[in-house]
Amino acid sequence: VIVTVTPNPAVDLTYQVGRLVRGASHRVTRVLERAGGKGLNVARVLHALGEAATVVAPLGGPAGEWVARALAAEGLVVRPVPVAGETRRTVTVLDGEATVLNEPGPRLPPSDWQALLDAVETSVGGGASALVISGSVPPGAPADLYPRLVEMAGRVGVPAIVDTGGPALLAAAEAGPAVVKPNAEELAAATGEPDLLDGARGLLARGAQRVVVSLGSAGMLAVSAGDAWRVRGVPGVHGNPTGAGDATVAALALAVTEGCRWPEPLLRATALGAAAVLAGAAGEVDLAAYRAFLPALSAEEIR
Amino acid sequence: VIVTVTPNPAVDLTYQVGRLVRGASHRVTRVLERAGGKGLNVARVLHALGEAATVVAPLGGPAGEWVARALAAEGLVVRPVPVAGETRRTVTVLDGEATVLNEPGPRLPPSDWQALLDAVETSVGGGASALVISGSVPPGAPADLYPRLVEMAGRVGVPAIVDTGGPALLAAAEAGPAVVKPNAEELAAATGEPDLLDGARGLLARGAQRVVVSLGSAGMLAVSAGDAWRVRGVPGVHGNPTGAGDATVAALALAVTEGCRWPEPLLRATALGAAAVLAGAAGEVDLAAYRAFLPALSAEEIR
Repeated sequence: VIVTVTPNPAVDLTYQVGRLVRGASHRVTRVLERAGGKGLNVARVLHALGEAATVVAPLGGPAGEWVARALAAEGLVVRPVPVAGETRRTVTVLDGEATVLNEPGPRLPPSDWQALLDAVETSVGGGASALVISGSVPPGAPADLYPRLVEMAGRVGVPAIVDTGGPALLAAAEAGPAVVKPNAEELAAATGEPDLLDGARGLLARGAQRVVVSLGSAGMLAVSAGDAWRVRGVPGVHGNPTGAGDATVAALALAVTEGCRWPEPLLRATALGAAAVLAGAAGEVDLAAYRAFLPALSAEEIR
Repeated sequence: VIVTVTPNPAVDLTYQVGRLVRGASHRVTRVLERAGGKGLNVARVLHALGEAATVVAPLGGPAGEWVARALAAEGLVVRPVPVAGETRRTVTVLDGEATVLNEPGPRLPPSDWQALLDAVETSVGGGASALVISGSVPPGAPADLYPRLVEMAGRVGVPAIVDTGGPALLAAAEAGPAVVKPNAEELAAATGEPDLLDGARGLLARGAQRVVVSLGSAGMLAVSAGDAWRVRGVPGVHGNPTGAGDATVAALALAVTEGCRWPEPLLRATALGAAAVLAGAAGEVDLAAYRAFLPALSAEEIR
């Protein structure tokens, strides 16, 4: 079982409108409501690949109950951590462009964060093959939440894969996770290094065992103390990039679990990310496209 | 007790953002969540005036449960009608301007609409002094919903006050309500008459006993078969006009209940509408301002 933790899940609302005009009133013609959060999408992709995944997330209020029910209805195993604050929403307004409004998420008391840590400890201790830690940390969360999660996995010999940005990325790297996967922008912003290889080496120096950097349609990089690889993106793939990063994380977690040697995890991650762009919604992948893309990719060692 | 019916209630979300830019991603810095709907606001204003009000509304899903709990916490008496569709949301994005996104509301099966009619019948039959019918009708609602509600009140001698626009306004007028209160724009759009007095007389001809037209800061008109009055708005009132119309409806309902002779209801409605503009949120009124405004107003008869 791969355990995914999502500290800041959401109800994702998608509104179709004629054209968004600042200061105007709009009739929403179509409403789509979906459980959202990067770790949730990772679990969805793993589920689509036939791999068992457990979703651990703080869920509160009616919105939190809705998320737990919606995920269970999708066939996912959920370990909801009931919390005092109501689960947040995100609103995406579609009118040709996508305009996104992200609620920050509830401020939770320390006891709720302890409950989340306890739930992850139980899930990871129950025979997990990997721990995936994804997404933003809500306001007021303990600064050491991500390192504590990484250490918790480390104590029972479970590899941790971290997908986040900002101070949480730096803090997580210090705890020695198997993989950190920022995108290029997150890496540059967190480390302050204009060069991606330098930025990746900065995270290695902090303690990360491997840094995987996603470059959007340009592909991916993977850097460890002993090697560095680059895979170019699948050419000519157009679609919805939302959730592509989560698909790459699912591929990395599964490859690490299966003991694949590098650059194989990077090839799988690149192919699955492209297969996610072709699918309709975040957390979905086009498996036929994945199988077609994978053998056509090759990795180039960077020296 | 004044009974208010809100066929299309909502969870009203207010998002503060830096500046709304189409196609961009935004961090919401402040989230306000409030039970919304015109009939709910009418009940809030009546409650503030010390008058007993019962809120009848179809409420469904977690959002509907939240609305029922939120209204009860405000001290309102709620008769929720549990329905199959989830209660809608509205999102108002504030960045100096207000950009509004209105979900249309759930499509309910006929049995849910019958349950709403039954709940109103029970509430009105239990000694109501007036029935207030407010707001839009969700998609798929029976075309004769408003006239049926008006007739239901009429059968037990309870005056009905209707605040809506479009085809629902025309249909409601046919059933002979005590008062219909469109604003100037709604009246012109529904009747196609560019002249407000002609439009009002059109609604009287359909069956309405009295037509009250709100003109925003310019004041109000009241027209019946026997008389017509105009009250000019309170000068120099600036603030939030959202919910001012609901305050005028609350004043009209209360004045009708108390048997006030015209133009007294119009004076009270104008003063209370202005007092609502000064208050912070829809459903709130500045009672001290109301008491100061009322004696300064006078009505002019239109011949």
